[in-house]
Amino acid sequence: MRFEHETLPQRVRFAPGDAAASVLAEVERLGGSRVMVIAAPGESDLAAQVTAGLPVVLRHDDVVMHVPVATAERARAAAAAHDVDVMVSVGGGSTTGLAKAVALTTGLPVVAVPTTYAGSEATSVWGLTEGARKTTGADPRVLPRAVVYDATLTLSLPVAMSVASGLNALAHCVDSLWAPRTDPIAQALAGEGIRALAAGLPTVVTDPIGLTGREHLLYGAYLAALAFSSAGSGLHHKICHVLGGAYDLPHAQTHAVVLPYVLAFNAPAAPEAERRMATAFDAPTAVEGLRRLRRAVDAPLALRDHGFDEAHIDDAVRAILEVVPAGNPRRVTAQNLRRLLRAASRGADPATVAAMGG
Amino acid sequence: MRFEHETLPQRVRFAPGDAAASVLAEVERLGGSRVMVIAAPGESDLAAQVTAGLPVVLRHDDVVMHVPVATAERARAAAAAHDVDVMVSVGGGSTTGLAKAVALTTGLPVVAVPTTYAGSEATSVWGLTEGARKTTGADPRVLPRAVVYDATLTLSLPVAMSVASGLNALAHCVDSLWAPRTDPIAQALAGEGIRALAAGLPTVVTDPIGLTGREHLLYGAYLAALAFSSAGSGLHHKICHVLGGAYDLPHAQTHAVVLPYVLAFNAPAAPEAERRMATAFDAPTAVEGLRRLRRAVDAPLALRDHGFDEAHIDDAVRAILEVVPAGNPRRVTAQNLRRLLRAASRGADPATVAAMGG
Repeated sequence: MRFEHETLPQRVRFAPGDAAASVLAEVERLGGSRVMVIAAPGESDLAAQVTAGLPVVLRHDDVVMHVPVATAERARAAAAAHDVDVMVSVGGGSTTGLAKAVALTTGLPVVAVPTTYAGSEATSVWGLTEGARKTTGADPRVLPRAVVYDATLTLSLPVAMSVASGLNALAHCVDSLWAPRTDPIAQALAGEGIRALAAGLPTVVTDPIGLTGREHLLYGAYLAALAFSSAGSGLHHKICHVLGGAYDLPHAQTHAVVLPYVLAFNAPAAPEAERRMATAFDAPTAVEGLRRLRRAVDAPLALRDHGFDEAHIDDAVRAILEVVPAGNPRRVTAQNLRRLLRAASRGADPATVAAMGG
Repeated sequence: MRFEHETLPQRVRFAPGDAAASVLAEVERLGGSRVMVIAAPGESDLAAQVTAGLPVVLRHDDVVMHVPVATAERARAAAAAHDVDVMVSVGGGSTTGLAKAVALTTGLPVVAVPTTYAGSEATSVWGLTEGARKTTGADPRVLPRAVVYDATLTLSLPVAMSVASGLNALAHCVDSLWAPRTDPIAQALAGEGIRALAAGLPTVVTDPIGLTGREHLLYGAYLAALAFSSAGSGLHHKICHVLGGAYDLPHAQTHAVVLPYVLAFNAPAAPEAERRMATAFDAPTAVEGLRRLRRAVDAPLALRDHGFDEAHIDDAVRAILEVVPAGNPRRVTAQNLRRLLRAASRGADPATVAAMGG
């Protein structure tokens, strides 16, 4: 048992239906008297409700996907011009990301109110884009001081998008179990995340306007972000990154399809992770648990249904082999990677991947 | 799902056999150039090894149980006189506690190296005594910035003391599941703690000089402290506090005897906690899991073997009823409390407590 783990300071409140009072309490804790509210135009009404009663000096809705540098600069200038002392972000990953970009250079504290299951609010990772180039980094200053999770704010997220986002969080949990910087604490958080997501995903499908499933997804996404930002990218994320970047495959579907194959591939060589996942899924094995869950939410099954051409497999194998993470429980070879991608392309039974040789 | 959880910032390193290099790295991270080492005389050799290579300006061995105010004042004065910039504590709860007392007034950062399973190093709780009066409080400044867990440093802790200390940590985990400020995150940490302690305790008994069991106890004690300091005292700790204070019963034995009765009492009314514990114990039920574990480590069975007189039961019941924590899963009455204490006094089967009426 040899590892390092850094726990980052953050207050979280899970307060269904109660975001406004919770945000007010957190802003008061931070001594905020000049609040900048960041929310995209589509969420300005929601943001107005959530921030009612705050001493708001600026409502900023210039939010752009992937946080372009120019967008960040405009937000920083606006914060300075209005002598802001606390930021409140209401929205998904791009909105939280903009608040983090401002915090990066100003040190201003952020209270984040997520409306999706992206998880960015629970990490100290920031990202900025300039044209097609993305720069990322980690800095303790960008970690929101407080997060207010109110599941009623996620009710308008369509079921299909909720499922895709929840499966993405699930992939973060699973991959955290064997990622390069994994440790028992990250693994415990990931296990709890899998438990919450496996409970929440089918519930959101059967009862999209109920709160229970949404609460579980928010909670699971929070844990997924903690585990993943601590453990780093494992084999699953490396594969998806290559496939998404080179062949322009849709992000959510790629993750949803590839996960069971990477799980089936690694699990036999990672008995502790397998046991933890099986327990979290409440299933005899991790592979079986994920199979049941994917069936319950009607998850996408085959990469070729989403634009992947098997002619690219050899190219993809070469690219993936270069980025296989250190310490992956099973040795990754051109041969077994080729079989994994072929199986994922066709939606074959993941068990065939588990059984295959070196 | 409605709760608040505050995560406190701390770096932990689990580094068996490698304390000195890890402490050096953490002191360097903190920019320490004038180190004060705090260790009791009995552990000065150990402390010398662990702190070899540090820029030590002061070795302070004036450590007294329960941190008397005068002891704290002397340590604070010594730190000021030597212009100390980082403290390194090597020892058990009283040693860590002294470093925390200095941090409380000076803000000096602490690197803690625990040699027992007390868990104080993972909390922001401080305690000072003045005669028989104990004052405690919580302050973020006293939380050690970094903790170095090296299981080789605990090898000299006798098996009986290790078991008592490990069972005490287990009681922290179990009680965290229904304590007043419990929440899903504290519960997840507690579940992981139970898992580690249930694995480590029997291993320490069968292989006292092996590292595996000790590592699990250190890890479990760390998680127990995180969960307990977040969730607060539940029914178990309230009962033990009354019994220990009024009848001068030995701390560790009282906890070890009472735990299965409180567990058997509460578990039927706390199905989620029951399920989490059963999974962590890898047993059909939590009660059965704890029974197996207690048998494996030959835990004490009956309060009357440790000085408890049944004539005190009515008095104890009255005192406990005044401090029953809010939100205990099962209603506590004079009648069921009397039966619980009688069963604990005699070492009766805890199942009789589970089955009993209101």
